[in-house]
Amino acid sequence: MKLYNWQFAPNCRRVRMFVLEKGLDLPSIEEVIGDGLKLTPSYVDTWPHAMVPMLETDDGARIGEAMAICRYLEDQYPESNLMGRNALEKGTIEMWERRAYDEGMIGVAEVFRNSHPDFVDRGLPGTLETVPQIPQLIDRGKGRVARFFSKFDRQLQETTWVAGPRFTVADITALCAVDFATFNGFEIPPACTSLERWHAQVSARPSAVASR
Amino acid sequence: MKLYNWQFAPNCRRVRMFVLEKGLDLPSIEEVIGDGLKLTPSYVDTWPHAMVPMLETDDGARIGEAMAICRYLEDQYPESNLMGRNALEKGTIEMWERRAYDEGMIGVAEVFRNSHPDFVDRGLPGTLETVPQIPQLIDRGKGRVARFFSKFDRQLQETTWVAGPRFTVADITALCAVDFATFNGFEIPPACTSLERWHAQVSARPSAVASR
Repeated sequence: MKLYNWQFAPNCRRVRMFVLEKGLDLPSIEEVIGDGLKLTPSYVDTWPHAMVPMLETDDGARIGEAMAICRYLEDQYPESNLMGRNALEKGTIEMWERRAYDEGMIGVAEVFRNSHPDFVDRGLPGTLETVPQIPQLIDRGKGRVARFFSKFDRQLQETTWVAGPRFTVADITALCAVDFATFNGFEIPPACTSLERWHAQVSARPSAVASR
Repeated sequence: MKLYNWQFAPNCRRVRMFVLEKGLDLPSIEEVIGDGLKLTPSYVDTWPHAMVPMLETDDGARIGEAMAICRYLEDQYPESNLMGRNALEKGTIEMWERRAYDEGMIGVAEVFRNSHPDFVDRGLPGTLETVPQIPQLIDRGKGRVARFFSKFDRQLQETTWVAGPRFTVADITALCAVDFATFNGFEIPPACTSLERWHAQVSARPSAVASR
């Protein structure tokens, strides 16, 4: 297996952390980021989705999207289980994973993509077409991240981990979103003590350290 | 089981069509949309994610997010399989389902949410806070939908269904996105003959008709 990777990208970290939680050897990793924080032309030429991460299997099949890659790995390597053992767990974990992505990850991405000088005319991933930055999305993204922090704090007042009593892939996406946020200048609000407690716990896991 | 629903919302249609493809009786359905295309206060008061669809199980557990609900149902009612029978299928289907959502559904939503008079100050779902419309997102959404059409047309030149040789949940999300687009004034480009062929096939399925 080979993972096409950009070490800095939070979506790639989701996969690397997932692999580490499974106790697997990391697949061979190819960095596909070049000048100006752009994906290399040779990668984009052969991968029309023009995004990372992408996993290439030993049979040459290619899967993009962090969670699709994790779904593939969860089936191939069922232990330790990270996506649910029964219907209710599977649904609950997926709900929280998608909320962490839509509110946390996309919220920070709106701020990052629409303000970073290397992303002028690259307002959206996955295309080589010109997509202008929209400065109003910076404020909208900030509001989105603030709601993410407070919603997940409320959830973590009730539960040890994001989706319930055990660590799951929802914690991975939430951690990657929080760390992407703090990298971009956000701070966990002081009132969000449960989120802070959880963040310390999950950050201490070997997979969190080694996937950075 | 009870499905909290807004009949018009494409994300709710994803779940209804999924249930029909399984050959299940629809769960009891509660419409939770009120004046001004707003979710009813009684619903929002008890469901902090403030979005539809949401499934309440007979045990009182609640799952939001269309795909999380489908994941729950796929585990409870494995046939007919719509989310993959092995690792490669599961990964491939999830990749295409997420692309249909991010490029198709979100692209149309950017146009819809940022132009519709009933959505002034409601630029994002899932919150009661004021989120101003951003007119530049109308153009950005249009580009996103155009890329969705051409990408899925290219894929459907190679495959019968979106994720390969059989009908899956990726077709459901793609259909709901295309129909949401045409409802909002988009047309499938004449050059996209494979997308058009697929659209006619999937639209003829009883689940597509009955979920409208």
